[in-house]
Amino acid sequence: MIVLGIDPGTAVTGYGVVKGDRSLPPRLIECGVIRTRARDTLPQRLREIHAGVVELIERHHPDAMSIEDVFYARNVRTTIVLGHARGVILLAGEQSRIEIFEYPPAEIKKAIVGNGGATKLQVQFMVTRLLRLKTAPEPADAADGVAAALTHIMAARLPKISDELALITARR
Amino acid sequence: MIVLGIDPGTAVTGYGVVKGDRSLPPRLIECGVIRTRARDTLPQRLREIHAGVVELIERHHPDAMSIEDVFYARNVRTTIVLGHARGVILLAGEQSRIEIFEYPPAEIKKAIVGNGGATKLQVQFMVTRLLRLKTAPEPADAADGVAAALTHIMAARLPKISDELALITARR
Repeated sequence: MIVLGIDPGTAVTGYGVVKGDRSLPPRLIECGVIRTRARDTLPQRLREIHAGVVELIERHHPDAMSIEDVFYARNVRTTIVLGHARGVILLAGEQSRIEIFEYPPAEIKKAIVGNGGATKLQVQFMVTRLLRLKTAPEPADAADGVAAALTHIMAARLPKISDELALITARR
Repeated sequence: MIVLGIDPGTAVTGYGVVKGDRSLPPRLIECGVIRTRARDTLPQRLREIHAGVVELIERHHPDAMSIEDVFYARNVRTTIVLGHARGVILLAGEQSRIEIFEYPPAEIKKAIVGNGGATKLQVQFMVTRLLRLKTAPEPADAADGVAAALTHIMAARLPKISDELALITARR
């Protein structure tokens, strides 16, 4: 399973492409950021982000997209603009018929570090360990994209609650 | 000048295509709504909205898109989801290289009715009068899309402040 993890942002969108399955340890294929110019208009920046994600999907043919859910920033305007960026990212995934999974930031931190209130540095450190990398993914936004991908891979390894229930029902 | 006016929403996106220039009265070409299914996922609904706007642009080749700016809903979650819808609408305009103009709801109401706190019914009534229609555009969301288009046409008729300033500077 190849997962494209995304940490959305209008200025910087971090991403990580991770390969993983039930038996082998996860492996990092690519990570980086889609950076937009502050002097560009919001529609121009949205086009850059959409085109960047489409390009990643065409290059890696991921089976799933794992994206950070909206966090409620203290600044409402910032959160709304972030919503615009997420919109075009979800669109890119949907246009390619990829399954899309959303995880709140705290859930990603909990999955990676074991603590929903972990710092960016702790996330970088654990991502580096989990993928047995020599150095941490840079910049931090790229590491956050990788963390989103890893979270989905680790969640997919667990049996689903619905499967468990089916088993219990079958046993009766 | 042909203007595509849009009132964004995840469930219902209203639109109006209006033709107007400096001399002739504005004329309604088409109006309606892009409706998405509540049972669909957000990415699916975003794809419907994006495809709907792309189709409108291909059919009418508008010179400009005029879109309602985000209003700060009392419910933050609703406002963020609305941001997603606006994101894919702005993207559709930008991908077609159309000039995009944003107007806050109060500015649209003020331009159409003369009062920033006007009701939906008053907007429908004035849109009907300004375009000399026999009946009001239905549903109200379609009328809001038409109102956005009309606002831009009326704003474009006024000399721009920058032009005025240039004139004042030139006179000195």
